[in-house]
Amino acid sequence: MTPDNRFDTSLFRHTTQVRVRNYEVDWQGIVHNAVYLLYFEVGRVEYLKTMGAHLDLNSVRGKNKVVLVRNEIDYRKPVRFDELLTVYTRISCIKTTSFWMEGILQDAESGANAATNVAFHVWLDASTDRPTPVSDEFRKQVQNFEGQNCLIEWPRIDV
Amino acid sequence: MTPDNRFDTSLFRHTTQVRVRNYEVDWQGIVHNAVYLLYFEVGRVEYLKTMGAHLDLNSVRGKNKVVLVRNEIDYRKPVRFDELLTVYTRISCIKTTSFWMEGILQDAESGANAATNVAFHVWLDASTDRPTPVSDEFRKQVQNFEGQNCLIEWPRIDV
Amino acid sequence: MTPDNRFDTSLFRHTTQVRVRNYEVDWQGIVHNAVYLLYFEVGRVEYLKTMGAHLDLNSVRGKNKVVLVRNEIDYRKPVRFDELLTVYTRISCIKTTSFWMEGILQDAESGANAATNVAFHVWLDASTDRPTPVSDEFRKQVQNFEGQNCLIEWPRIDV
Amino acid sequence: MTPDNRFDTSLFRHTTQVRVRNYEVDWQGIVHNAVYLLYFEVGRVEYLKTMGAHLDLNSVRGKNKVVLVRNEIDYRKPVRFDELLTVYTRISCIKTTSFWMEGILQDAESGANAATNVAFHVWLDASTDRPTPVSDEFRKQVQNFEGQNCLIEWPRIDV
Repeated sequence: MTPDNRFDTSLFRHTTQVRVRNYEVDWQGIVHNAVYLLYFEVGRVEYLKTMGAHLDLNSVRGKNKVVLVRNEIDYRKPVRFDELLTVYTRISCIKTTSFWMEGILQDAESGANAATNVAFHVWLDASTDRPTPVSDEFRKQVQNFEGQNCLIEWPRIDV
Repeated sequence: MTPDNRFDTSLFRHTTQVRVRNYEVDWQGIVHNAVYLLYFEVGRVEYLKTMGAHLDLNSVRGKNKVVLVRNEIDYRKPVRFDELLTVYTRISCIKTTSFWMEGILQDAESGANAATNVAFHVWLDASTDRPTPVSDEFRKQVQNFEGQNCLIEWPRIDV
Repeated sequence: MTPDNRFDTSLFRHTTQVRVRNYEVDWQGIVHNAVYLLYFEVGRVEYLKTMGAHLDLNSVRGKNKVVLVRNEIDYRKPVRFDELLTVYTRISCIKTTSFWMEGILQDAESGANAATNVAFHVWLDASTDRPTPVSDEFRKQVQNFEGQNCLIEWPRIDV
Repeated sequence: MTPDNRFDTSLFRHTTQVRVRNYEVDWQGIVHNAVYLLYFEVGRVEYLKTMGAHLDLNSVRGKNKVVLVRNEIDYRKPVRFDELLTVYTRISCIKTTSFWMEGILQDAESGANAATNVAFHVWLDASTDRPTPVSDEFRKQVQNFEGQNCLIEWPRIDV
């Protein structure tokens, strides 16, 4: 299970907003559980654009590609039609060949936490589909944007 | 993280099939990450129908309701247009006030594992929104259907 | 077929905006044809809210309900990820038991027309499901909001 | 408006089935109006596969591409969760540079007509985006499959 203290909005430097649309609400009058993933994706796409990463998640970039390998979503309160939501997004950790994007979905009016998400991405060699180190360029972009709140491993270069 | 040995298809007594539709494929030619949740939901709904549970997930039933509180999805291989997928579904564990539904998405032709899911549900008192014990009726239905592969806790009744 | 001169933006008094999201784009890199209907619906819902109509399309309101019976969409140019779109919405005609909502989807940057829509709605008696006259209250609201650009029939009351 | 006599199921030589999924039902308990377009698309994709057309609608094929330019949908009755629907699909008309695909959505149990669709497609030169004649190969495939129920114009070749 995901420890809650990770999802402290003060750790996040990027937000965007979405308003719940009529057709995203299911027959119970609440947003369908799969739609939360779409909102978090809106956050991730905007985050990468803001950071200037020119990184298309899940697509080939040069000789590498970045793929989403795991999603964890904790649903904390139902969300209803026409609610304005703030999507917080950050990269919390970069390991040798992977990185974690975290998100919080917050009711913009009340500040209540509606859901949290961790999306695990892996950097692959596009020709072999095997894990390959996250590029230094990307590590530096994230370091500049996130500062010390992101745990960044720099792979050891043996001399 | 989810240990892989949990996702052994021989533990599952329920399957249904879905064929990937044109509009479920994103601009990369592969099924979008949120659509996997829809496939697993098709499995859960069919599972409950087959078991005869008359349980609407996430909706009020008598004085209780069952809500989805957490989803974990591991993406194991991309899925493409027109692939036939087998959705395996089971309830693997019932605790005092919660239960876990697990799913495997398998390429029906090759047998390759495309994704796995654990969906955590909680039983709530509909008037207070506080956790309340999973009903004995539901425990028995699951026990009959799943047998010993499902770990079922029976809350102690103090005399 | 829809005559093009109907879709003159100067006739529209209501606009809202949507930005194309990543997951709305299909495997060809363009917005899927069914998603256009969702954008037009965003426009209609905002329109009714702005006009103060308290009218839930397709749902029961008092003893009547309003249902969507026909959609016409003309696709005029492909729309791509991250484009900002202006949705124009108006009610162009109220007949005895029906009304027409028209929409234009416009590329906000270039002003190019991306699509047009006519959505035909019928007013039904909720108990019999038979057409019933559009309420005078709704006619007046639309008349106040749209002015003479909306052709409003007032059913003759025989004395 | 669409004349109803066009939608006679005896004119259709292709059917496929879809079962309404949980997440396709909106907050009113009925299938959302945009989802009907997805069902009709399932029909069209299966139709072209069955006919052996190797035609990807809306995508480039050799030096031409086929684009959807207009959709008309008439909603005739609400459709609910778990209903089995039969999707009838046919090509009813091929003109010089365009063709019409028609669909009926039928409640498989009662035989009631739930909706009808006409989807207008245009054949374009992929380099200029200007209309170009529908290929003779495609005309012949449709003629073989549909027989005399499809009105096929063969463009005059001036000698």
